[in-house]
Amino acid sequence: MSKPVVGIVSPGDMGAAIGAVTRDAGLDVVACLSGRGPLTRSRAKEAGIRDVESLDELVSVADLMLSVLVPAEAVGVSELLAASMSRTGAKPVVADCNAVAPATAGRICNAITAAGAAFVDAGIIGPPPRKGSSATRIYCSGPDCAPLLALNAFGLDVRQVGSAVGQASGLKMVFAASTKGTTALWTELLVAARSLGLDDALAAEFALGRGDLAQRLIGQIPGMPRRAHRWIGEMEEIATTFADVGLTPRILLGAADVYRLVGETPLADQTSRQPDPPLDTILATLVDALKVPREDATAARDG
Amino acid sequence: MSKPVVGIVSPGDMGAAIGAVTRDAGLDVVACLSGRGPLTRSRAKEAGIRDVESLDELVSVADLMLSVLVPAEAVGVSELLAASMSRTGAKPVVADCNAVAPATAGRICNAITAAGAAFVDAGIIGPPPRKGSSATRIYCSGPDCAPLLALNAFGLDVRQVGSAVGQASGLKMVFAASTKGTTALWTELLVAARSLGLDDALAAEFALGRGDLAQRLIGQIPGMPRRAHRWIGEMEEIATTFADVGLTPRILLGAADVYRLVGETPLADQTSRQPDPPLDTILATLVDALKVPREDATAARDG
Repeated sequence: MSKPVVGIVSPGDMGAAIGAVTRDAGLDVVACLSGRGPLTRSRAKEAGIRDVESLDELVSVADLMLSVLVPAEAVGVSELLAASMSRTGAKPVVADCNAVAPATAGRICNAITAAGAAFVDAGIIGPPPRKGSSATRIYCSGPDCAPLLALNAFGLDVRQVGSAVGQASGLKMVFAASTKGTTALWTELLVAARSLGLDDALAAEFALGRGDLAQRLIGQIPGMPRRAHRWIGEMEEIATTFADVGLTPRILLGAADVYRLVGETPLADQTSRQPDPPLDTILATLVDALKVPREDATAARDG
Repeated sequence: MSKPVVGIVSPGDMGAAIGAVTRDAGLDVVACLSGRGPLTRSRAKEAGIRDVESLDELVSVADLMLSVLVPAEAVGVSELLAASMSRTGAKPVVADCNAVAPATAGRICNAITAAGAAFVDAGIIGPPPRKGSSATRIYCSGPDCAPLLALNAFGLDVRQVGSAVGQASGLKMVFAASTKGTTALWTELLVAARSLGLDDALAAEFALGRGDLAQRLIGQIPGMPRRAHRWIGEMEEIATTFADVGLTPRILLGAADVYRLVGETPLADQTSRQPDPPLDTILATLVDALKVPREDATAARDG
């Protein structure tokens, strides 16, 4: 496995970028694009990812499978992978790179190892990787991380964070809470300020004390709307992570609510190839979206 | 009213500091300390606050009453003030300086104006004021803020934010969400990281990208535990504020949960005259406090 064949489910923004980097570094990168839309297909083609006919063919040719999905799909796809491995007898190492709770990673691990394959827990921190950039880390944990660590020789930055399944996912969860959780809170409070006609007063107060800090946190908001759909499930996985150690899930369930609100507006339909909308547009759009009848708001408050 | 007599309910950390500053600037500052503990009495004495026998005497001698309380007491005390004014016929201007939702400020306004007195909505941002420091702003709103703005001539920094009752409270709410809400989230995620054995990994990841930002936000945590009790009700008032404009209350209700957790530990028993505990002690104490049986955590998560 000195030059592993890498299989990717599924090559979205992140998966295709990982494919492109490892392909550029000389690896054969494979995916199964049947049923996928034209954007995914063109992105995969640009990345040099080889298309195969079926999931069964994919697990048969791959030495290492990377699962790179929205959190809500992670468990279901791991079951499809396990079924495919049982059918074909192929046993590629499976690395789950999704933003899921440690407990969810444990369930995925069980599905994969029950099918006889080795499992690596992983969590990606940073933007989709690009050749020559060092902004993206793939953390991993588990009893044998060597198959994923091997990708360090092929353009990626992979770091082991422990020997137990769940640790890499846990690190992704607490880190994402610090970034996306904070962005949800600040989005909400700016929408509230706008809704109450207090934007200018709040900006003036920020400028008196913590203006640069506020600007940096607010600066995270414009890049958020096009990711809002994806982040709903991620916030829910963090809520589960916190609840599983005895902490309140409510902050992160509220963050999921904020991303659900954003996700229901046209703001969420932008792609990463379009410029981010200005903050002002985002706030105005979200205030318009707050057409909740007062009774519902009261029920939500008391619930 | 060129030298108004200022009445304060009640002279805790914040109220006593406001009393001390205005007293130093030449005003007669009055409170009713009957039934209050030795700490409150000594603090009031140090501040030069004059003690009167009863609430009725207080409203009778004061030109301007400042209500400076924990949020949960604000409505009840406004009703006591209204009853006292009805009994005595005294009608001092009442400024509610508490961290309450605009709707709560509206209820307080109704109680006060029904008793025939003028009302000013106010919200304090910053630490207890000190002579020569410019770190504290008292924002106010309402149809006639002049009686409170008059304190600008007596050592305080009072700024009008609008002509409607609720705007000053609203500004306090969105600002407090940005500070105390963020601190609750970061406390929670650091406790989760500690609980999962991921502190070092998280610190290393922060150091790679947003180390200074993380340090500034984490730096807010040590000063929090002794305020945690007070902040529970404040987070709930912000949750109400957000729900009232149609936004999710859950982020801030979760923040209240975090401060409830902190408030149940010995960390919350420190006074402002003791040094803040180190972050490490705070995290270790909170991880120890997470003795919630798994079933409860699951129920909380699904609830």
